[in-house]
Amino acid sequence: MNWHVFVIGKPKLAFAKAGMEEYVRRIQPFAPLVIECLKSSSRETESAALLRRSEGMFRIVLDERGGQFTSRQFSQKLAEWEQRSVKSIALIIGGADGHTEDLRHSADWLMALSKFTLQHELALVVALEQIYRGYSIKSGTPYHRE
Amino acid sequence: MNWHVFVIGKPKLAFAKAGMEEYVRRIQPFAPLVIECLKSSSRETESAALLRRSEGMFRIVLDERGGQFTSRQFSQKLAEWEQRSVKSIALIIGGADGHTEDLRHSADWLMALSKFTLQHELALVVALEQIYRGYSIKSGTPYHRE
Repeated sequence: MNWHVFVIGKPKLAFAKAGMEEYVRRIQPFAPLVIECLKSSSRETESAALLRRSEGMFRIVLDERGGQFTSRQFSQKLAEWEQRSVKSIALIIGGADGHTEDLRHSADWLMALSKFTLQHELALVVALEQIYRGYSIKSGTPYHRE
Repeated sequence: MNWHVFVIGKPKLAFAKAGMEEYVRRIQPFAPLVIECLKSSSRETESAALLRRSEGMFRIVLDERGGQFTSRQFSQKLAEWEQRSVKSIALIIGGADGHTEDLRHSADWLMALSKFTLQHELALVVALEQIYRGYSIKSGTPYHRE
């Protein structure tokens, strides 16, 4: 299962960039993952570009209106998608103004990280940590404690 | 209103340390905030030390069982606490094994950031960004968009 993480704009926060690199490195042994930065623009143009670039992939769209899950539930989802032979997963994080309705409707899975509005680069770090945690739970490594 | 942020163990993740410093710097113009690191130990010893160190302060305890709030609601809470003349706020983040019942019961406000389990240093960065966002909303600066 290949991950394509789509993010709007080049990372501006140095710590968030370092955080992304940290978790990308940790996720690699479990699954290939690339981060693709799209140009910042209007919400409509951004959402259209995200739709085009994620064509044919299983789309996880991060949105405050999405459902929330525990880390264990997310880990079970990873296992389920692998069993369903999902080849490519697009993790889609909007820009500062969020997503259009079109993009939200195209989501295979609409997921919220928090009720809080998170700075979008920080949201990406949180999402990557969950992917790493999800694979850790699935493989039984001791990273996750309850 | 003075913030005391209590965290267990010295930060180990370089990016999270940088993220904390970023938001501490941004929060300073709104309110004094210090981060105090307590020694990592058993859950019982950690929670007891957190209770002792936050004696007399208004305690916000981060816990997955707490309530979730939007950034705007959190901002309104900040205003409410200022109006009630809260002098010192303790923001309490547990170690890898969480809090004891005692500490949870002593909370003036039990708050969850997410249903996900977040690495606790990353959780601290998320919490600090919300404090900064909360003050930004309250003061009408353009950081928060909806």
